[in-house]
Amino acid sequence: IVEFACLLIAVKLNGFACKNPAWVQANDFSFSGLHNPGNTGNPFGSAITPVTVAQIPALNTLGISLVRIDYAPWGVVVPHYHPRATEIITVIEGSLEVGFVTSNPDNRLISKTLQKGDVFVFPVGLVHFQRNVGHMNAVTISGLNSQNPGVITIGNAVFGSKPDISTDILAKAFQVDKNIVQQIQGKF
Amino acid sequence: IVEFACLLIAVKLNGFACKNPAWVQANDFSFSGLHNPGNTGNPFGSAITPVTVAQIPALNTLGISLVRIDYAPWGVVVPHYHPRATEIITVIEGSLEVGFVTSNPDNRLISKTLQKGDVFVFPVGLVHFQRNVGHMNAVTISGLNSQNPGVITIGNAVFGSKPDISTDILAKAFQVDKNIVQQIQGKF
Amino acid sequence: IVEFACLLIAVKLNGFACKNPAWVQANDFSFSGLHNPGNTGNPFGSAITPVTVAQIPALNTLGISLVRIDYAPWGVVVPHYHPRATEIITVIEGSLEVGFVTSNPDNRLISKTLQKGDVFVFPVGLVHFQRNVGHMNAVTISGLNSQNPGVITIGNAVFGSKPDISTDILAKAFQVDKNIVQQIQGKF
Amino acid sequence: IVEFACLLIAVKLNGFACKNPAWVQANDFSFSGLHNPGNTGNPFGSAITPVTVAQIPALNTLGISLVRIDYAPWGVVVPHYHPRATEIITVIEGSLEVGFVTSNPDNRLISKTLQKGDVFVFPVGLVHFQRNVGHMNAVTISGLNSQNPGVITIGNAVFGSKPDISTDILAKAFQVDKNIVQQIQGKF
Amino acid sequence: IVEFACLLIAVKLNGFACKNPAWVQANDFSFSGLHNPGNTGNPFGSAITPVTVAQIPALNTLGISLVRIDYAPWGVVVPHYHPRATEIITVIEGSLEVGFVTSNPDNRLISKTLQKGDVFVFPVGLVHFQRNVGHMNAVTISGLNSQNPGVITIGNAVFGSKPDISTDILAKAFQVDKNIVQQIQGKF
Amino acid sequence: IVEFACLLIAVKLNGFACKNPAWVQANDFSFSGLHNPGNTGNPFGSAITPVTVAQIPALNTLGISLVRIDYAPWGVVVPHYHPRATEIITVIEGSLEVGFVTSNPDNRLISKTLQKGDVFVFPVGLVHFQRNVGHMNAVTISGLNSQNPGVITIGNAVFGSKPDISTDILAKAFQVDKNIVQQIQGKF
Repeated sequence: IVEFACLLIAVKLNGFACKNPAWVQANDFSFSGLHNPGNTGNPFGSAITPVTVAQIPALNTLGISLVRIDYAPWGVVVPHYHPRATEIITVIEGSLEVGFVTSNPDNRLISKTLQKGDVFVFPVGLVHFQRNVGHMNAVTISGLNSQNPGVITIGNAVFGSKPDISTDILAKAFQVDKNIVQQIQGKF
Repeated sequence: IVEFACLLIAVKLNGFACKNPAWVQANDFSFSGLHNPGNTGNPFGSAITPVTVAQIPALNTLGISLVRIDYAPWGVVVPHYHPRATEIITVIEGSLEVGFVTSNPDNRLISKTLQKGDVFVFPVGLVHFQRNVGHMNAVTISGLNSQNPGVITIGNAVFGSKPDISTDILAKAFQVDKNIVQQIQGKF
Repeated sequence: IVEFACLLIAVKLNGFACKNPAWVQANDFSFSGLHNPGNTGNPFGSAITPVTVAQIPALNTLGISLVRIDYAPWGVVVPHYHPRATEIITVIEGSLEVGFVTSNPDNRLISKTLQKGDVFVFPVGLVHFQRNVGHMNAVTISGLNSQNPGVITIGNAVFGSKPDISTDILAKAFQVDKNIVQQIQGKF
Repeated sequence: IVEFACLLIAVKLNGFACKNPAWVQANDFSFSGLHNPGNTGNPFGSAITPVTVAQIPALNTLGISLVRIDYAPWGVVVPHYHPRATEIITVIEGSLEVGFVTSNPDNRLISKTLQKGDVFVFPVGLVHFQRNVGHMNAVTISGLNSQNPGVITIGNAVFGSKPDISTDILAKAFQVDKNIVQQIQGKF
Repeated sequence: IVEFACLLIAVKLNGFACKNPAWVQANDFSFSGLHNPGNTGNPFGSAITPVTVAQIPALNTLGISLVRIDYAPWGVVVPHYHPRATEIITVIEGSLEVGFVTSNPDNRLISKTLQKGDVFVFPVGLVHFQRNVGHMNAVTISGLNSQNPGVITIGNAVFGSKPDISTDILAKAFQVDKNIVQQIQGKF
Repeated sequence: IVEFACLLIAVKLNGFACKNPAWVQANDFSFSGLHNPGNTGNPFGSAITPVTVAQIPALNTLGISLVRIDYAPWGVVVPHYHPRATEIITVIEGSLEVGFVTSNPDNRLISKTLQKGDVFVFPVGLVHFQRNVGHMNAVTISGLNSQNPGVITIGNAVFGSKPDISTDILAKAFQVDKNIVQQIQGKF
């Protein structure tokens, strides 16, 4: 009987397999390469390097993960939320605008421009974003209180689902013409 | 010592006040009027009547709530999610298209057209919607496993926050021109 | 990695099997027929139609269920409790007397007669009951905050267990003669 | 900031007061007298000495309690359940018949006669009982995994509530004549 | 569907096997022999008899365990902690000095000498100890709010790990010469 | 009703005061200065800069914190544990030896030398340590899944409590002469 109920070794159709505790070793608890910049050569100008249970199997049941994010100048992590985790972020390099929006009916935007060494909190389940507001690359590291926090990117979920959400539902949701909805859906 | 740790009687600046257990009575556990149709005369053609801890103070700490929704013909409950609750919905009258979208990277739309007497589940934290697909009014009742499930409507959170999220962040997020973003923001 | 840890496909001797997330579809999240009246032609004059994880496998881990109850005139749902759920009930048709009893030492009966559209709460673990007090059929729908709330009917647990609880224990418990206990046990 | 979020010093109308952590001392964590036999001179022939948050204020939030029970020869702890705790019991002196009943639809009685040094488990929320089956006094000590486990005694909750549950509801519940119900209600 | 999610019948490489609920019986919920004194003929003069999920498989998921401890005169249970349980202890025979230490920065020792019938609480995760301060054997029984509370004995974890923690880390930790560290490590 | 149940504004004798949600602002969610090296001019050659609920009041109930640690060459964070959090650590600069010890009876040391960009996990409640094994300063950042993880330093808790644990208890615990125990106690 050990502290880590089940150290994952494989994802199978009918669940997960657990490693024999006697065979557990330091490498099951580690990951390398978080100092390497991600590739920001994409439309958003950002790159996400997660360290969750998918990278470190021993994180199973332990309720924590890390993520490094790189931002090209003016790069953005577009609005998204984590259904199972609060995020605490710190700026390693650069300066960033960050913000989250509270729930109905207030929908207050709580935002701030962060400098190197600043720390900020995105409460669980709230839509948030980050944007590099400097002329140099920026880097952040975040802790999240789930080994599998999940990410729901608003654009992908609403305009990029497979199959699409009906055009007229989205037209009502965003109070625009259907052809604008179709134009946005076409990008995803 | 009673089963309900603190029966709310008032929301104050510094928290909640609890009712003396000896004074608790049946009315603290009840609410009336869920048979009354809501007013669907609004742009969405839908009306939401919640029964949460705000309506029944004894629900505090008990982890459950109900909601009735009325839908005019083609009325819509636009894409939203509950950060703290799974929802199980049943159709009392009419027929509805419903769906939810799974998280990244799949973003699968799981949807179905429901008839009277059908039941469907929206897992906690996932974006979902409902639409009346009949020519008559529709009514649903849902259970949610929180006394305070919260609602985050995508349109309000992303395009209607106070203050606005920067136009160019949203332009990147939805891959459209800034003037389209501003047009949508103007509606909220 | 999906939001629903394990979608049940079968109950086996050594646990449950999970469905491959890629094969999950809308029918795994749905159930039909909750608009159909149950058969109240039994000694209690009531019929219970549950929608729990046994009916919708995707409810596993999601912590919610629904139940429809039909009541013939003067039909009763006899005293029972749910060890793992609070229940929130609403009257769709008819009028009902409902109540629950608080724990030792007070044992207060908190009861009320509900009309169509009324909502009432039975806190987790407390003994409660419902009775149709009208001359027409009644219908309720309840939400419960567990996918497997459990039901312990007092009569069945105390007088109808297999094998029986010793007669003299029950005689002491209810402060009656053993032959009355045996008479009640004979009915179960 | 200490390990015990709030050490109760008083129960007030609007909640509990917490002790200043700097003033906490060993007596806040202790209780004396569990070696003293309780007075079993009552109709049940048993006596319960609880050590819960009501006796040790520091148990608040810590999720554990103890209870000593004394049993005169043939003394009984009548059927009851704890809505918030599993109980693990050990026999210090004497021999006892104990049992619990599983939920619907099986209602299996799982029972055993325990001797000195035997240990047994009553799962959370299930109806259980104990009876001294020897000609000498018996003593047990139990651990319960709540600082406030609660006790719901079936007889008190069903036949002894204040006010009474309607006679005809109980007549249906136990399938007996109303006058037998009234006879039992009169004892409580 | 029963109250005990999975009754362990075996520990396997890839997890636990569950017993068919229909085959569950009273012996799965019981253990014998807690009245037998443990063998205190060891350097510490104490003996621990646990009743956890390893002894009673039905305790799985039920969150409770018991432990009996015997103490020779001046016998000691050396400083240790339980990472997953609060402990509530009562003295059956003898008198004991007990104590626990609060966390940084205070490191207050909260201690007391207990007599027969006294009860004391060791909050979850805090270092604690017991010592027989009488000239006769002592016996305690404790409840712990986990079926698998875990034990981390400070001496074993710090000076007796396999392999050893580097001598100079421990020399810094305890501010002593390395040869004293090596002398202590040699004892484990 | 907001996502953050109670934003602390003060610690009082009888608990915490909450900030009016309408007055919450970005500064309540932020902290500055995590890029500043801590002062390692102390006997351990290390410095800890925590960002917990004590630094960011909005972390209350959100279950996450960050910590920066600086290490002089051969600086050490001596053996300690967090009673309420798993820690995930990443090396920003330098190289470190890290390790944790599993519980009784195995007491396995799971250790590894980490380089810049490596990530490692210390499971909740287990004793762990870090040591700079390079000739330059080292820096780490960790996420912990509690807003108030707590720290129990073995040396402080065992040899530095106020008042002291009895010398002969510690002599038995570490199997050394009392004068060595007293020598160590004298250092704390």
